[in-house]
Amino acid sequence: MTEKAFQEYDPAYFNYCYGCGPLNEHGLHIQSYWDGDETVCRFQAKPYHTAFPGYVYGGLIASLIDCHSMGTAVAAAYRAEGREMGTPPSLRFVTASLRVDFLRPTRLGDYPLELRSRIQEIKGRKVVVATDVAVQGEVCVRGEAVAVRMPEQWLEQPA
Amino acid sequence: MTEKAFQEYDPAYFNYCYGCGPLNEHGLHIQSYWDGDETVCRFQAKPYHTAFPGYVYGGLIASLIDCHSMGTAVAAAYRAEGREMGTPPSLRFVTASLRVDFLRPTRLGDYPLELRSRIQEIKGRKVVVATDVAVQGEVCVRGEAVAVRMPEQWLEQPA
Repeated sequence: MTEKAFQEYDPAYFNYCYGCGPLNEHGLHIQSYWDGDETVCRFQAKPYHTAFPGYVYGGLIASLIDCHSMGTAVAAAYRAEGREMGTPPSLRFVTASLRVDFLRPTRLGDYPLELRSRIQEIKGRKVVVATDVAVQGEVCVRGEAVAVRMPEQWLEQPA
Repeated sequence: MTEKAFQEYDPAYFNYCYGCGPLNEHGLHIQSYWDGDETVCRFQAKPYHTAFPGYVYGGLIASLIDCHSMGTAVAAAYRAEGREMGTPPSLRFVTASLRVDFLRPTRLGDYPLELRSRIQEIKGRKVVVATDVAVQGEVCVRGEAVAVRMPEQWLEQPA
C-alpha cells in the first residue's frame, strides 16, 4: 500500500469534494490507496451514520463507493499511461453511473468499512470499477461505478 | 400534496436514519410526499454538499434517491393495501439495490433539488421505484431503487 492517498495528488480536483476533499471541513475525507492490482479504502463510520439501530446508512456506503471508484479510475488511468499520479496533464473523472447491491445489512461498530476495488474495464475515456464493501471480513455490499473523463470546461466555468 | 411527510408516520422505523430520521441531529432530514400517483421530495443542498465548485455531490444525490425511494415504497405498499399510512402492522422496507445515472452535472445553488418518483412495480415483498432528480426544471439524474420488505427480526436484534 502506498503512503500517499490518491486524493492528495491533485488538490485542485479533489479539494472541496464532500466525499473526498481534504479541505471540505464538513466532508467524509475518503482516502484511497493501491494494494497490488486492487485499490483499498478504509472508513470508520460515525455512530450517526446509521440507517436503523446497529447498521450503517446505505447512502454513506454509496458515497464511499462513488468517491473511491473515481479516485481508483484516476489512479488506474495514470498507471495505464505509465505516468506518475498527479503529473500534468491531469486526468480527472466523474461518475456516469453507480450501482449498489446491498447483500445484507452492514453492521455499524468500532471497526472500519473496507472497500476493495478492481478495474473491470479501462478503455478510451471510460473506466469501470467493481467494489466489495466488507466489515470484519464479511462482504455486505457490492458496487459498480462507471467513470468517464471530465470535460475540462466543467472546471473552467463553475456556476 | 399531503401535509405530513411519509417519514413522520412511523417514528420507530425512521427516527435515527441519517438520511430521513427526524431525530438524527447530524442527518439530512429528507421528507417525501404524495403528489397524485407520484411522490415528491425537495431538498436544499448545503454549500458544502459539493463535488467540485458549483455542482452537487453525487453521493448526496444517491442518498436522497435511496431514502426517498424507501419512503415511497412504504407509502405505495400501504396504498396498495388500502390502508392508512402508519397503521399496524407496520410495513417497512430496505434497499436491495440502487442504480443512479448521472446524465449531466447538477448545479448547486439557492434552489432545491426536486425528486419525483413513480412506482414501477409492486409485487409481493418488492417495490421498484424510478426517480428523476431535477434542478430548476432540468432532469440531471435518474435513479432506480429496488425496495424489499424488512424482516422484523432486524429491528428486534440490533447489534
